[in-house]
Amino acid sequence: MRVLAFDIYGTLFDLGSLVEAARGVAPDPAGFVAAWRSKQLEYALLLSMMGRYERFRVVTERALRYVSRRLGLGLGEAEVQRLLEAWLRLRPHPDVPGALPRLASRYTVVALTNGDVDMVDELLRGAGVRHHFAAILSAEEAGVFKPSPRVYGLVARLGVQLGEIALVSSNPWDAAGAANAGLKAVYVNRHGLPPEELDAAPHLVVRDLEELAAALLG
Amino acid sequence: MRVLAFDIYGTLFDLGSLVEAARGVAPDPAGFVAAWRSKQLEYALLLSMMGRYERFRVVTERALRYVSRRLGLGLGEAEVQRLLEAWLRLRPHPDVPGALPRLASRYTVVALTNGDVDMVDELLRGAGVRHHFAAILSAEEAGVFKPSPRVYGLVARLGVQLGEIALVSSNPWDAAGAANAGLKAVYVNRHGLPPEELDAAPHLVVRDLEELAAALLG
Repeated sequence: MRVLAFDIYGTLFDLGSLVEAARGVAPDPAGFVAAWRSKQLEYALLLSMMGRYERFRVVTERALRYVSRRLGLGLGEAEVQRLLEAWLRLRPHPDVPGALPRLASRYTVVALTNGDVDMVDELLRGAGVRHHFAAILSAEEAGVFKPSPRVYGLVARLGVQLGEIALVSSNPWDAAGAANAGLKAVYVNRHGLPPEELDAAPHLVVRDLEELAAALLG
Repeated sequence: MRVLAFDIYGTLFDLGSLVEAARGVAPDPAGFVAAWRSKQLEYALLLSMMGRYERFRVVTERALRYVSRRLGLGLGEAEVQRLLEAWLRLRPHPDVPGALPRLASRYTVVALTNGDVDMVDELLRGAGVRHHFAAILSAEEAGVFKPSPRVYGLVARLGVQLGEIALVSSNPWDAAGAANAGLKAVYVNRHGLPPEELDAAPHLVVRDLEELAAALLG
């Protein structure tokens, strides 16, 4: 293994941060964030399949406006913008500050994300971890979202064999997409979920990045 | 307008029938069916994007097995098979028996479905409405699921201009996919949901097929 390609949202950064941002605007902040995230993924997949890629920021905003209307939240423009800004200041998962630098000292580390380059760059800088990443590879460049093989194919420019690159993700469909595209897939099963029924099993399952570091670095 | 292409699941047939089939196997049958349907759609989209199309029956079974494990239902093999069989005997929505024959007397009617041809054929025959359909056009033939334009493109064989064909669906992403592919799109908003934020608005929104018949037949 020579390269670790990290997914960003949910994998390195805790979407629970959004729940805090949603307090005061939704009666059930956790339910609201789950619905938002689910709609965001649905729109990303639907737009990809329709050949109508849009930037992740736009997809995220569309999902937010739909869910706000669906739940009858009646969000004002300022609240919509504040909730979208929260994606730029997510909290890293507690295992990240310890494990990421150790992994980055042994492997080339890149981001491989559905997020826009500018969104992810700002998020990584704010968390003080941008310097660990040799590159931010984004769906933006492929004009389609993961799990399309075209997004995983962006790693080709790193000049390394696909099988020497591991995609690390806590989104099970993302790990499946990576395995499907010929990368090694590490599934970070943070919530102890059962395996997906997708016939593209990950090569390694860990609970968090500490466990990944232990497996790779000994 | 010369052709009406009907979506099947949810549009003509009530997925509420599955809730009845689920009584006794899930403590919250409606929640279980919602999770099953949602996972089925997710898998259909993910497999399409990964270029790993599988028959709808298989996707439906994969989704069922995942949701059963996720909810800790511990379904036995006989229960799995019984729940899958329920897709072959769904109940038509109450407006269908009255409105479908009137629409079919004026327009060429076809099915345009993510379902497998044999599943849909059996369902339509069991409900006594198969003779209204000139053809069953299935994702099976396109090797990918809706909302890929390749599935809507199957209507080309009918020898009619795309703009003279209306896709009728109660799945809002399906109506969006049809509009995106150049067909006319009729969204049957059976549950009074807010409009989706997909920039591919339907040409007509009706509450049920009676309202569609009134709009088209006067």
